[in-house]
Formats: sequence, structure tokens, C-alpha cells
Amino acid sequence: MENFDFYSPTYFSFGKDAESKTGSLVKRFGGSKVLIHYGGGSVIRSGLLGRVKASLERESIGYIELGGVKPNPRSGLVYQGISLCRKEKVDFILAVGGGSTIDSAKAIAAGTVYDGDFWDFYEGKPVTEALPVGTVLTIAAAGSEGSPDSVITKEQGMIKRGASGDAYRPKFSVMNPALTQTLPPYQTACGITDIMAHLYERYLTNTGDVETTDRMIEALMLAMVHEAPKVILNPDDYQARANIMWAGMMAHNNSCGVGRTQDWTSHNIEHELSAMYDCAHGAGLAVTMPAVFTYTMGHDITRFVKVATRVWGCEMDFENPEATARAGIEALRRFLISIGMPKNFSELGAKEEDIEKLAHTCCYGSENSDGTITGFTKLTQKDVENIYRLML
Amino acid sequence: MENFDFYSPTYFSFGKDAESKTGSLVKRFGGSKVLIHYGGGSVIRSGLLGRVKASLERESIGYIELGGVKPNPRSGLVYQGISLCRKEKVDFILAVGGGSTIDSAKAIAAGTVYDGDFWDFYEGKPVTEALPVGTVLTIAAAGSEGSPDSVITKEQGMIKRGASGDAYRPKFSVMNPALTQTLPPYQTACGITDIMAHLYERYLTNTGDVETTDRMIEALMLAMVHEAPKVILNPDDYQARANIMWAGMMAHNNSCGVGRTQDWTSHNIEHELSAMYDCAHGAGLAVTMPAVFTYTMGHDITRFVKVATRVWGCEMDFENPEATARAGIEALRRFLISIGMPKNFSELGAKEEDIEKLAHTCCYGSENSDGTITGFTKLTQKDVENIYRLML
Repeated sequence: MENFDFYSPTYFSFGKDAESKTGSLVKRFGGSKVLIHYGGGSVIRSGLLGRVKASLERESIGYIELGGVKPNPRSGLVYQGISLCRKEKVDFILAVGGGSTIDSAKAIAAGTVYDGDFWDFYEGKPVTEALPVGTVLTIAAAGSEGSPDSVITKEQGMIKRGASGDAYRPKFSVMNPALTQTLPPYQTACGITDIMAHLYERYLTNTGDVETTDRMIEALMLAMVHEAPKVILNPDDYQARANIMWAGMMAHNNSCGVGRTQDWTSHNIEHELSAMYDCAHGAGLAVTMPAVFTYTMGHDITRFVKVATRVWGCEMDFENPEATARAGIEALRRFLISIGMPKNFSELGAKEEDIEKLAHTCCYGSENSDGTITGFTKLTQKDVENIYRLML
Repeated sequence: MENFDFYSPTYFSFGKDAESKTGSLVKRFGGSKVLIHYGGGSVIRSGLLGRVKASLERESIGYIELGGVKPNPRSGLVYQGISLCRKEKVDFILAVGGGSTIDSAKAIAAGTVYDGDFWDFYEGKPVTEALPVGTVLTIAAAGSEGSPDSVITKEQGMIKRGASGDAYRPKFSVMNPALTQTLPPYQTACGITDIMAHLYERYLTNTGDVETTDRMIEALMLAMVHEAPKVILNPDDYQARANIMWAGMMAHNNSCGVGRTQDWTSHNIEHELSAMYDCAHGAGLAVTMPAVFTYTMGHDITRFVKVATRVWGCEMDFENPEATARAGIEALRRFLISIGMPKNFSELGAKEEDIEKLAHTCCYGSENSDGTITGFTKLTQKDVENIYRLML
């Protein structure tokens, strides 16, 4: 296990009607003028936004609103949010929505108190200061409710990049599993896929003997595999929704990712897909992960054998461990298809002729990039092209 | 899953030489005059106390010292610490040691800012305010480095009781696995047993469908069973020490205990043993757990069948699930004996003739007690006597 620091100071309020506590939580964490940030109309139609506002009003907390966050949230709205917050002297950002809304809220929170262009953080500058952020979560997926991360897409060139820092950890997150019961099955499945990716990308490590966190990751995968079919079959299954929601947070607050190298190759390669075709991040990951794992498994077959036998119940083939590893990847693919995820490039709306461009942006798109992506193993543009071809 | 709030704001600095950061961490969390609290001479002899002081001095932080914490820490030293802190205007308590030292530090932290008798908190008053506490951990066991809990023994009547509250969560915990390499095997094994108990007592729930946290608890148990024999065989195995140390924190910060009822019967019944005979808490638990589980398994055999098959690798006996449950308890008992723990009352130094008194204090010892102890199931004094008898 490598040396590490771990700090997850987010206050989680979990359960039925938890959103009614939003106002008192904002107050507890020092907010007096709030920007409520959200996406489309679903939080208005469902009445959630009204309940959140009522909760703020009960505590006499002032607020303004900025809706319109889209999946793969854009820098344009972030700039709009930043100037709004400065003008209105906002001191607390409240995200009501899923990962995209929370990520956009975090970017606004950092940008508001920063003199330069907020995009600097998405080019590698560490986030050390930001307005406090709270969240009212509406989908179990991104884990942004408990993570120090945010991913934003810049319109010019459709560049999708992440930023990170403890200042991005929400002060509180309201997690009411019932709020996720109205999600369409496709979105639910996209969220489940994202959670599985957060687990796989931590599991694929080059650090030896990290048995405790290996076991924790496997545990969360096993729980997901057990609970996912239930919510696809019965979207109103509160208990299964609750199990998935807590697993989604635990998968990404990094308590099971400490002290080890991590991968993030699948996320990097997927980001180009959702940036170029605006497909759902989870759907992109469902197509990307099996391709990446098949291409990179030779780097350390043991990782794939371990997850195959412990999570997917594959028989250990002692004569041919590679067959066991492949069986595990195949089991993951079948699981993702079974919950309704796409299985190849065309189902995703991606095009073979774009592969070179996708791979080039992936390897050279960021100002600091050296032409490779590094995680579980080092990949060149040629490797990334080969991986995209496996998705055809 | 039941509604819950979860808040674990402790900053964990984990790894080799992590204690050199102590001073900067105290500064980060606002300390300017520190009480260094510790146990016997081992932290002096090992040089740890010197390194911690040097780290404080580098940050120009003043400190005073109070050593002498004993296993099953006593109220007498807590009162001494409280008056010392008031007199010297201490604003930060730094525990250098294991669970006993940290628990004692927490009690001093609450008592210093409280007008009444600190023992009120150990009679059920919630801990809402305390001086900030930091820890430099020297044994993986109690989980107090990340928990909101503290257990103190009152000399009059040798009453051992716990108190709890978010104010008891340490501001930071320094976790250097190398510091645990010098522990004698018996103490190491006691710590391992305590961690296993924290997992079992969360696992024994009456809440249905808590698959995610079930899996997490099983994961931590599996990691302990895998790593424990390594450190017993080779105390210098840093990686195994590191895995156990992180598991010990995760087992008790309650991230895998949320949204479910918990047991704590074994802890309650054991507390009387370590209070009366001053035996090690872990050793007491090793004798107590199998007896409690054997006595209470009929309340919900499924819990015991699940842990038997998933953690201990027992074959499922579909004709006789009780046999599977018993096999799991037997596997736990064998594991504890294999790492050097006692197996019965006499090895613990406990006496059959004390059973009635032990059971009476357990059920009636606290001011608020109604003659029963309640967790996984409700037990009367007669039940508790029967459980002690199973340990003979």
C-alpha cells in the first residue's frame, strides 16, 4: 500500500424525505445566499425544486436559480454561473440533480473565487479554494456527491476534462433513494455502469498487496450485480435503489481507492465519445470498458483473474488463466447488455471514420499531454485507435 | 435500509513516517496549545513521542504532557486531564497511542468544555461539544481513530461504559503501519479480534436488504482473515500491517454500518469481563463472541448462514442451515485460537462464581438500564448468565 492522505468531510443525509433538511444543512455549513443549480425541467415537474426552496425559506435563506445544465455539462453555463454568483454575492452553491449538475456547480464554486479562467483547473491546476457546495442527488451514478472531482466539456473543440481537489468535496449531500425511482430505465442503467467503471478503474492497479481495498471494491461490485437487475425490473424498489445509491457514493469517495495506483483509461477514452457524440457517459463506458480491458489485460492478468473468480463466479482455469480473465470481461459485458446498455460503436452513434480524430484528441487534447494516456498501462495514440476499433 | 446521517470528517494521513506531519495537522485544525496524552513508556522508548514533539516544535506549537493511560482507561486520569487542560488553557488534545489512549483523550476533550461531571456522557448524555482531538495511532484495533466513540471505566464499581457523538470524531488521525510492527503478537491478535467484533456486531442486524453494507462488512472480514496470519507469522510485514490498519478504521467509522440496526451484545457482555478482571478487551471478545453467537443465532439463522458461506467458505447445508451457521461460528473460533487468543473463561482469568454478578452489572449497571441488553435480540440477566456459562 502506498502512502496517502484521505479526507471525506461531506455530511451525508440519507433516506426518505431527506431533502426537507436542505435548508438546515445549508445553514449549518454557513450559507446565507444560495445559487440553486439544476438541469432540465424534471426537478421542477417532480416538485423537488419546490420542496428544496421551501426548505431554504423555512430557514430564511435567500436564493437565486440557474437551470439548464445538460449531460456532459458545458463551460458556457459555468461562465454564466460565475458572473451571476459574483453579481448576486452568492456564498453557497446548491446542486439539485445528478453528476452533471454537481460537476457544473463545483466548477462555478471554484471559478467564482478565482481571478483567472476557471478552465485552468481543468488543465491541471489543483483546486484549492471554492465556495461551499451542497447537493441534493437525483441519480446514483457519478459519485460526485462525495468526490473531489468534476468533469466539464469546453464547447470550442468539444474538449472534456476533469478537475480535482478537496475544495470540491461537497459540504453535505442529501441522498433520498426515492428520488431516483422516477428515472427511466436507460438512465438508471447508465448510472449503474458509471458506478461499475469507478470500481473497475480503481481495481486495475499496479500496487501489490492491497487486499483490503481489493475486497471492498469487489464487495461493491457484488452488491451492484445483485441489486441492479431488481431496479431494472421494478423501478420502485426503494431498498434496491438505496443499496445502489450508497454503493455509488462509496465507489467514488475513494475510501476503497486509497494507497494504490488507479487506471482511468476507460474514462479517458470514453470522454472523447460523449464529448463528440453527446452520448450518455454511462452508455459510452459500457462500450469502452470491455474493449479497454481486453486490450490491456496482458499487462497483469492476475487482476482480471481475481475479479473474474471473486465477482463474476468464473471457474478458475489453472491451465489457462487468460481464459478465466476473458470469461470475467465477457461476464461484465453480458451484465451491461442485460441492463439495457449498448454494446458497440454503432449503437452508441459513433462512427468508424472518426477513430483517428478521437484517439488524437484523447492523447494530445490537453495542454499538458505528451501523446500517451497512462493508468493501468501506458497507451499511445495507435493503442487508443486499436481500442476504439475493438468497439466496432 | 433505514434513514441515517453519516459524517466522518477525520483527515487521515496514512503511511511511512506520517507522524512527521503531526505538527502541521494540529496547526491546520486550529491547535495552539496541545495536551499530548499517552500510555506507558513504549512510545517514549520507541522514540515516537520525541518525533511527535519535534514535529510540534517545528510549527512552534506549545504542549504539555499527560502519560499513564492504562488498557481499559480509567476515569481518574480523565479527571486529572480535565483539570490540567483547564489550568494550562489547552485547546487541542493529541492522543499518541491505541484505543485506550484515544478514548481517554476524547473524554478529556469533552470534559474540559463541560460544566458538569464528564461521566454524564457515559451515562447516555450525547456528546455535542469537545475540544478538537487528533491521534497518532500505534495499534490497529479499536477504530477510535475514525469513530465517534469512547469507552471509559469508572473505578468505583469498575463500571465500563461508552459515550458517542460527532464531536468525538478526531480532526485528524496519523496512521503509520510501521509503528505497529513492534507490537507483541498477543496485542496484535487482540486488535485483530476487536476489529472482527466491530464487523460482526454491525453484521448482526434486524434490517432486511442491506446488501451493500453486508458485502462491505464481509469484504473487511475476508481481508482480515487473509492478512492476520501474515502479521502473526511475521510482525514486520508492513503491507499486511497496512491492510489491517485501514480495515480497522473502515470497520468502525461506520461507513459499513449505516442504515441498519446493530448488535453490540458481545461488546456489552465483554465489557464486564475486562472491567472486573482487567483482561485485554480483544481477548475478552475472543471468548465472548462465539458464546453470544451460539446463544442468539436462532433469532435469525440467515445472518449466520450468510457469513458462514461468504466469509468462512462453509458449504451450504440446504437440509440443515443451522449446521452451516454453527460451522461458521466454529470457523471464527478456530481463527481466533489460531492467532493466539484465549478460548474460555479460565484462560481469560475469569471465575465461574462471578457469573451472577457479571450478568447483573451488565444488565443493571447503568443508571438508565432496564434489566435487559438489546441489540440483535433482547437478553435478560438470565440469558446473559447462560452466555457466560457457555464460555466455561
